[in-house]
Amino acid sequence: MNKSVIRYILSWVLQIEGALLLLPCLVAVLYREKSGIAFAVVAFLCLCIGSLGKWKKPKNTDFYARDGFLAVSLSWVLLSLVGALPFLLNREIPSFEDALFETISGFTTTGASILTDVEALSRCSLFWRSLTHWIGGMGVLVFLLAILPLAGGNQMHLLRAESPGPTVGKLVPRMRSSTQILYGIYFALTVVEALLLLLSGMPLFDSLTLSFGTAGTGGFGILNDSAASYTAVQQVILTVFMILFGVNFNVYYFLLIRKPKQAFGCEEARVYFGIIAVSTALILWNIRDAFGSLLEGLRHAAFQVASIITTTGFSSVDFNAWPTFSKTILVLLMFIGACAGSTGGGIKVSRCLVFFRSVKREVAATVHPRSVRRVHLEGRPLDKQVLHSIERFLVAYVLLFAGSVLLVSLDNLDFTSTFTAVAATLNNIGPGLEAVGPASNFSALSGLSKFVLMFDMLAGRLELFPMLILFSPSIWKK
Amino acid sequence: MNKSVIRYILSWVLQIEGALLLLPCLVAVLYREKSGIAFAVVAFLCLCIGSLGKWKKPKNTDFYARDGFLAVSLSWVLLSLVGALPFLLNREIPSFEDALFETISGFTTTGASILTDVEALSRCSLFWRSLTHWIGGMGVLVFLLAILPLAGGNQMHLLRAESPGPTVGKLVPRMRSSTQILYGIYFALTVVEALLLLLSGMPLFDSLTLSFGTAGTGGFGILNDSAASYTAVQQVILTVFMILFGVNFNVYYFLLIRKPKQAFGCEEARVYFGIIAVSTALILWNIRDAFGSLLEGLRHAAFQVASIITTTGFSSVDFNAWPTFSKTILVLLMFIGACAGSTGGGIKVSRCLVFFRSVKREVAATVHPRSVRRVHLEGRPLDKQVLHSIERFLVAYVLLFAGSVLLVSLDNLDFTSTFTAVAATLNNIGPGLEAVGPASNFSALSGLSKFVLMFDMLAGRLELFPMLILFSPSIWKK
Repeated sequence: MNKSVIRYILSWVLQIEGALLLLPCLVAVLYREKSGIAFAVVAFLCLCIGSLGKWKKPKNTDFYARDGFLAVSLSWVLLSLVGALPFLLNREIPSFEDALFETISGFTTTGASILTDVEALSRCSLFWRSLTHWIGGMGVLVFLLAILPLAGGNQMHLLRAESPGPTVGKLVPRMRSSTQILYGIYFALTVVEALLLLLSGMPLFDSLTLSFGTAGTGGFGILNDSAASYTAVQQVILTVFMILFGVNFNVYYFLLIRKPKQAFGCEEARVYFGIIAVSTALILWNIRDAFGSLLEGLRHAAFQVASIITTTGFSSVDFNAWPTFSKTILVLLMFIGACAGSTGGGIKVSRCLVFFRSVKREVAATVHPRSVRRVHLEGRPLDKQVLHSIERFLVAYVLLFAGSVLLVSLDNLDFTSTFTAVAATLNNIGPGLEAVGPASNFSALSGLSKFVLMFDMLAGRLELFPMLILFSPSIWKK
Repeated sequence: MNKSVIRYILSWVLQIEGALLLLPCLVAVLYREKSGIAFAVVAFLCLCIGSLGKWKKPKNTDFYARDGFLAVSLSWVLLSLVGALPFLLNREIPSFEDALFETISGFTTTGASILTDVEALSRCSLFWRSLTHWIGGMGVLVFLLAILPLAGGNQMHLLRAESPGPTVGKLVPRMRSSTQILYGIYFALTVVEALLLLLSGMPLFDSLTLSFGTAGTGGFGILNDSAASYTAVQQVILTVFMILFGVNFNVYYFLLIRKPKQAFGCEEARVYFGIIAVSTALILWNIRDAFGSLLEGLRHAAFQVASIITTTGFSSVDFNAWPTFSKTILVLLMFIGACAGSTGGGIKVSRCLVFFRSVKREVAATVHPRSVRRVHLEGRPLDKQVLHSIERFLVAYVLLFAGSVLLVSLDNLDFTSTFTAVAATLNNIGPGLEAVGPASNFSALSGLSKFVLMFDMLAGRLELFPMLILFSPSIWKK
């Protein structure tokens, strides 16, 4: 293990977080809030310790896969621990486990909250809470790679550990340019959404925080009823942008460099839009009598579908009151998730596509053992190694899921709440059903359950293995 | 496709079923029940049509994997369709879909019932209902292989399609002897259980039917309260035999040929006993206040654990009233299932073991990419091909599960009922939770849901692929 490189990366992460913590300070100044002091203190500490830590550049820059995975998982734990401090210091979330839960939920873009009254928070805390979504959405290591001329050339390990999806490709040969393009698209889309929300009559503060929550597919709102009290136009804007942030960012890159054929040919994105259309139609049919007009029903069906498949987690109605068929569709969408290479969570559309094709191929292989075609993705045959690692991802996923459900069931909530609490955190969504439904929150859970779900949120965001290796004794050996 | 061999096998299956249908006729004669006539009529028809069908021996005995799979799945569908006829004819289950559901539930050793009042059935119907468990437990094709000197040498395909578990091995070089040994052990264990139940003071009829239900890990009882009203001793006998029938039959074979080292060295069986012990202890701790004495609690905890992990489905109490932690353990056991090579269903202990090790290896491979050991099972490294097909089994399983839950959710039962209805049928258990819990039954479900669950029962019993290939268009082409 290359400790000095990991130390160097962690110091950079700390300094970036320190710089970002200055933004809520600014908000506190504008709104003249005393609780902003906590942010200033933590920002100062981060900047100091970060500077000290990266004083000495690592001599040996050899950097292997396990260093990359470890750097990523430790970065996320550090980010969360530090990010929780302001909430503790300004006493707005006085319990350590709750502050940490809320911050992990923020950075992992889950959006599950332990707050019963969000509106009681100060503006600067609300701003930081939503900003964590934006930071976590594209990833802080990806950001680091965009600004840091890190030597060694093995930065791919960092990108692979933090980026969602079964395979990671660079857009352009140079890693730094690749990540700069990604962050550029991300930034631009966020600005466009905020402007549109402003134009629709929403105050600047609300527009910004909601855009952060949409862009990172997070789901923290600043109102107790999430997005239910916004106007129809605003809900439609949110729906559209939730869907846009769930698309593989390669599509935008192709549009940017004027290759519309490649952009519109993206198989994963097409299937993703197909699932959204079919799910919305099925739910609309199922809830047709619940709303005054078909158009209103369509708006709410599309909002909830977009919110859940992109794993954002805003809600425009309490979908827990919907019929079981609609709820089951939403639960399935929780697992499917958004596109790889987007800011969304879940298993990812491309993996699900591979699952289907892999089973189809197995059936074909049973019928005609000799004429077996390879499994294809995006028009290319999938490497066997990749296929197996995608299938193994599901195995790990199912085991972690089952273990988590078992531990959370000790809280003696009903089975549906227990099951969907894990589904909503491991897939980085936010609300589940029943006791953790959109009209409720995670505050009633025990400390054990909260820690299990915190782990699940991190494991879900980093796609399991960077977190699972922390349990491997050999990683801590020299 | 070799149609004449399939025709020949199906005719044999029909004739065997005809012969077995004479047993409930005998019961009807003993109890002087008129409803036995229906069994006599169907038995007669089966014997006639079966004889006609196998009049002409197939000239070409070439027999490929797809023929084997197809023969097995069609045999099971035929068995069920014919087995349902007596219930329809004697009007004891007047609806076609209900009679078919009950029969498929019987043959697949599920034990899920659509009957609200089991005790209203005639003795001969009750006997046939339990006998289907016994027939389905070890498998009718396995029986066929035991009595039929089928030429061609490709009988392995039949055995593989019908036998539970990721790999199928013959006990002795000759297939016929192998299957004879299996049926011998099966028969002997059933007789021992029936004798012990008789000795405990249970009437002969009850002893026999319950032994059939235990041996096949089926779970149909002949009383409305399943096994709740039996004495403590009888419940303990049932618990022990449920556990015994969930053990890999290879273990008994090794004991039989006096190789105790191999028998007790069976890794899968050891893990299976370990899971039973740990689950029972955890549930006992969780329900410690629900019963008068710790011993009574232990009896019920062990009974329920044995019943669910072996996928039998008897119940000695209404475990739906237990705390969520205990219920969650039971739901997880539903998925784990019994040992491969036993009569139990579910995913199987050996597959779960492979899942754990495969994830552990993936974690190790992330930490040390160069020093990767193979996944072992029963002390031997697992063939890569087998490992991937085990992982792919889970993929197919999850997809079928998700699709079934979606279709059943149209009934608008609560999510827990919907989820566990599928879990209880796909894993061949019987009772689920809430609306399909041990104190309820499947009668309230719609026709669509019943047909989905019938498919799931068959898919679960035949381990997915023999049923899934029925959807492949290419299997129906010449």
